[in-house]
Amino acid sequence: MSCRIALVIAYDGTEYAGWQRQTNALSIQQVLEETIERLFHETVHLTASGRTDAGVHAEGQVAAFDLQHPVPEQRLMAALNANLPSAIRVLQCRQVPDSFQPRYDAKKKTYRYTVFNGEVMPPAYRFTTVREYRQIDWDLVERAVHLFEGEHDFAAFHSTGSADRTTVRTIYQASCCADPADPRLHRIELTGNGFLYNMVRIIVSTLLDIGAGKRQISVIEEAFRTGDRSLAGPTAPPQGLTLVSVIYPQEKTL
Amino acid sequence: MSCRIALVIAYDGTEYAGWQRQTNALSIQQVLEETIERLFHETVHLTASGRTDAGVHAEGQVAAFDLQHPVPEQRLMAALNANLPSAIRVLQCRQVPDSFQPRYDAKKKTYRYTVFNGEVMPPAYRFTTVREYRQIDWDLVERAVHLFEGEHDFAAFHSTGSADRTTVRTIYQASCCADPADPRLHRIELTGNGFLYNMVRIIVSTLLDIGAGKRQISVIEEAFRTGDRSLAGPTAPPQGLTLVSVIYPQEKTL
Repeated sequence: MSCRIALVIAYDGTEYAGWQRQTNALSIQQVLEETIERLFHETVHLTASGRTDAGVHAEGQVAAFDLQHPVPEQRLMAALNANLPSAIRVLQCRQVPDSFQPRYDAKKKTYRYTVFNGEVMPPAYRFTTVREYRQIDWDLVERAVHLFEGEHDFAAFHSTGSADRTTVRTIYQASCCADPADPRLHRIELTGNGFLYNMVRIIVSTLLDIGAGKRQISVIEEAFRTGDRSLAGPTAPPQGLTLVSVIYPQEKTL
Repeated sequence: MSCRIALVIAYDGTEYAGWQRQTNALSIQQVLEETIERLFHETVHLTASGRTDAGVHAEGQVAAFDLQHPVPEQRLMAALNANLPSAIRVLQCRQVPDSFQPRYDAKKKTYRYTVFNGEVMPPAYRFTTVREYRQIDWDLVERAVHLFEGEHDFAAFHSTGSADRTTVRTIYQASCCADPADPRLHRIELTGNGFLYNMVRIIVSTLLDIGAGKRQISVIEEAFRTGDRSLAGPTAPPQGLTLVSVIYPQEKTL
């Protein structure tokens, strides 16, 4: 009698080739699967709420797998954290209904992108923050970020290569705040019902271009209307991005 | 006509053998000296406000060196930051009087030690924070930390091996605060006129032992009185420690 286990996982993606298994590089998925297999002598396959790219971090990735021989949740979590590299931590471990699917059941996701806008970036920030060299009008960025809220066609704000049926997504909340302890650090946070490939990173670089005076704030609405990828900015570097949390319907709450 | 240059330096000490040059391992001093030598074709020798051990970090280490052929401060700083590894950053660069000595002129130093006291430590903390597994009475630690303020004989709170003439030091300020954004993170901060070898790390582990109920708060006064090293705790791990700043007399302010 197998059981399905869901994990809430945090990781520093700096030294990994992203979430998904690769043939020639080490991924978070591979490390987790091999650790579980070594500990419990079963072949397992993890499915996540979605991939994260190389260098992208997570504070609350959700993944699930089936175990043929059930193990108490607390023992499983302790065993994993004792055997995983310190860059990967299991924050929660729960037995869930066999029907639970981390990707398709997800209702909302929150991503955060962290930008340092100052002269010399402290070494402690270097794995999780991208330095912006230009002078940025952060008040303008704060006004612009709210334009992403609501239901929009994000065709102009994604990279091709994914098999999504539609490019329409809803952003419930979009914000940009300076860190109270270090006002040179700015965090752009987006909560939505789903994100297209590279969508957060393209939104962020569009916002920074607007803040730097390189693009007009009006390009956002125009990009929604026309789907013209060239109106948006390039893809911002991965290390600034963190998958903060994944929210499920109440009956499936982890 | 040579000139003396003072640098304020931040570094992530994780991958270095400490500040001071070693024969078989890479130190912060060596990386800085070699970078300066490569850029300006002069042999230089850096003297710092003091050593930091392997794994210890700095937000405001101060070091000075002499250049035979002066270079404008801003150009020097930009050249260094463009050529140093991202774990080492020069935050300030100033020409100082030839009499300036980073170690002997220092009036005060501030160190911070960061402790995570929770179930699972987020990966982002792992290079700068030490996990405390025991349940800690943080109110008690906060009361205890103030007992270190004032002039005391810290003989019981240092490791032998340094050539200090006296073990008497003055702590001007000692505090312990939880991070408002993550109350599982606790920061012990000490400002004093000087610190003996391993003094901060021994004070921290003594405080944690007190908070865990392993030692009585009264051991602090007793250790001052007797100089008995066994009354204090062991040396806490290096990665929690950061040299925050070094303060000089006003006429030498960097």
